[in-house]
Amino acid sequence: MDLDLMRELSVKTDSKIILLILDGLGGLPMERGGNTELEAAETPNLDRMAAESDLGMSRPVAAGVSPGSGPGHLGLFGYDPLEFAVGRGVLSALGVGFEFGENDLAARINFATLDEDGKISDRRAGRIPSEKGEELVSLLDEKVSLDGTEVFIMHEKEYRAVVVFRAEGLSGDLSDTDPQRVGLEPLPVSPVDGSNGTEKRSADLANEFIKKANEILADEHPANTVLLRGFGMHPALPSFDEAYKLNAAAIAGYPMYKGLARLAGMELKKEGAGISGEIETLKASWEDHDFFFVHIKPTDAAGEDGDFERKREVIEEVDALLPEILSLGPDVLAITGDHGTPAKMKSHSWHGVPFMLRSEYTLPTGNSFGERACIAGSLGTFPAEEIMGLLMGHAMKLNRYGA
Amino acid sequence: MDLDLMRELSVKTDSKIILLILDGLGGLPMERGGNTELEAAETPNLDRMAAESDLGMSRPVAAGVSPGSGPGHLGLFGYDPLEFAVGRGVLSALGVGFEFGENDLAARINFATLDEDGKISDRRAGRIPSEKGEELVSLLDEKVSLDGTEVFIMHEKEYRAVVVFRAEGLSGDLSDTDPQRVGLEPLPVSPVDGSNGTEKRSADLANEFIKKANEILADEHPANTVLLRGFGMHPALPSFDEAYKLNAAAIAGYPMYKGLARLAGMELKKEGAGISGEIETLKASWEDHDFFFVHIKPTDAAGEDGDFERKREVIEEVDALLPEILSLGPDVLAITGDHGTPAKMKSHSWHGVPFMLRSEYTLPTGNSFGERACIAGSLGTFPAEEIMGLLMGHAMKLNRYGA
Repeated sequence: MDLDLMRELSVKTDSKIILLILDGLGGLPMERGGNTELEAAETPNLDRMAAESDLGMSRPVAAGVSPGSGPGHLGLFGYDPLEFAVGRGVLSALGVGFEFGENDLAARINFATLDEDGKISDRRAGRIPSEKGEELVSLLDEKVSLDGTEVFIMHEKEYRAVVVFRAEGLSGDLSDTDPQRVGLEPLPVSPVDGSNGTEKRSADLANEFIKKANEILADEHPANTVLLRGFGMHPALPSFDEAYKLNAAAIAGYPMYKGLARLAGMELKKEGAGISGEIETLKASWEDHDFFFVHIKPTDAAGEDGDFERKREVIEEVDALLPEILSLGPDVLAITGDHGTPAKMKSHSWHGVPFMLRSEYTLPTGNSFGERACIAGSLGTFPAEEIMGLLMGHAMKLNRYGA
Repeated sequence: MDLDLMRELSVKTDSKIILLILDGLGGLPMERGGNTELEAAETPNLDRMAAESDLGMSRPVAAGVSPGSGPGHLGLFGYDPLEFAVGRGVLSALGVGFEFGENDLAARINFATLDEDGKISDRRAGRIPSEKGEELVSLLDEKVSLDGTEVFIMHEKEYRAVVVFRAEGLSGDLSDTDPQRVGLEPLPVSPVDGSNGTEKRSADLANEFIKKANEILADEHPANTVLLRGFGMHPALPSFDEAYKLNAAAIAGYPMYKGLARLAGMELKKEGAGISGEIETLKASWEDHDFFFVHIKPTDAAGEDGDFERKREVIEEVDALLPEILSLGPDVLAITGDHGTPAKMKSHSWHGVPFMLRSEYTLPTGNSFGERACIAGSLGTFPAEEIMGLLMGHAMKLNRYGA
């Protein structure tokens, strides 16, 4: 999306937009001749909505390229994911609610196990429980100090945490320490491209942090070391308010997606439990915003597990809740995913993602919501970065371009 | 379109291309489950042509963005409408037949009414008739003079006119004086981005012009002032001859479209009355050109009026004339619009526009011309800027690229 164009043309109106993301929605048949998860699901409400909607296939990032959650969502929000690279560390920091600033350098921490030879024997420290992870984070937060640099350490979940270094003149162009295999020593943090002073200094800082953490954790087997990855600084994203003049709310259960939403300047809503809890939050927030990003995770989780049936069931659960969403009377409701996670592949995929948009101004082409219905839809196959333009246009929030 | 590529590959041949534009062709059903204007129209000739044509949906400018006539047509002619922004004033000047040069600065004039407090009470001066508009333009043209600058004032229609300032070192990056609402004072002309010497000088010139015009018009209530908008200089468009080696003719009834065609270096043909008059002109010019841009306005006008039936009837009128066009034996005939103007919306829209191209080298997919037939067509959904490449290819006017 051309964000300058959006900034120029967008106008504040009373119309309301919901972008409902079923993470990893896109699927594949498990066997030739079969249906995808979405096609196999019994979805009377989604199908009825399809008969009033524009359908198409949204393509993330680039042909053949499977996006992570970061690039997947940046694309949905209209930011070019190849231009705006956001480190995993930044997403984690934002996800736990850290007020990330422009002098901050973040990295994701995994607690891990070193054997007697200093080699990694478990990259996840036996998946220590969250209580233990929290305890270790408190210990590090209390004891680690670095000269001239503020250090913030926050627990995420189980063996996962995040560290933020705050000082003038840091750089996020640093390599990971996780060698991605057990039986190897952790790698030192190094500058990615050559080594100017800023990168060298930042790498030294991170390596000093690891050294001190190792001393503190020496007796904490299995969590006796930290692996750092996904270094990054704050990306210069224009906010939803700046780019689209939208007062956006985010309803999401997982830190990563909360972080992505916060990055776009959305207000995080405290969500209730499960999918129905999220819809309750949507209802409760309805009067206060004009854009709602609602993120549903279990479709992706089921796909990652290779569980076709569970993914189908999650889709059916969403279908059952659709009338409640529609009863709010959104001017625009779009339903899609950030990428495919076909159960057949047990991973994110590069395929097009079913996309459906309902407004007063659609040209319906069928009466079901599924991959093949979307392929034949009025929108064809289009880059995911165009979704925000479509939402804005259908919500009558864009002025005409030119005389 | 990559115009450098066109310039490199294009060759002069005897084949002839017609690009028939039904302005605002794209439509929507008035009610869910219904047909669009084009789908509802009885079009036996267009449908027969569809059975011999490539079909697709042409998308103007960007997702969700409704184009004005300027950007819409620039796209059809293969110019990127985001790169080549053309001010309304330039289009008006070209449209009335002014020989626009590179030192010329144009702005659109609206005659308007100032009340006793110097506030605008009518932005269109009570829609004075064309005779009165002409008389006032003559008065201004005779009496206004500016030091060191030639000034040309030309009447367009009713309360609308255009002014051109000719001098070395002018700039078109100037703001409008129309505050877009009554009850406010007109704004002064100001530089848009900061204020270098050129912009400052141009703004001063325009403000001086307005001051003198106000003195001359003082007793001409309701047309006692001028509002200026759409400032602009000549854009650096390569002509059709330069880009495509085409000797292009334009057959269009309205100043704006004549202006756009002239900008692309087309020769304006004097058109007969109505749609059938335009087709007569096409026949009369047939031997003299190898490219014909034929512009039909009433589809857009009916859409703007929200008149579904009238738009349908205009399409049927074109259908009835199609055999005459085909009898000329064009090597390539393409029919599309510059944007949608669905009667349902009473305005330009962002939707894809039905596109049909007939040549010896097509792969037909159906036997009707309508939005949903085009969605399922062999060309899919594609940017409007690609149309010229398709026309050139089908006319066998492009050399192979590379060995």
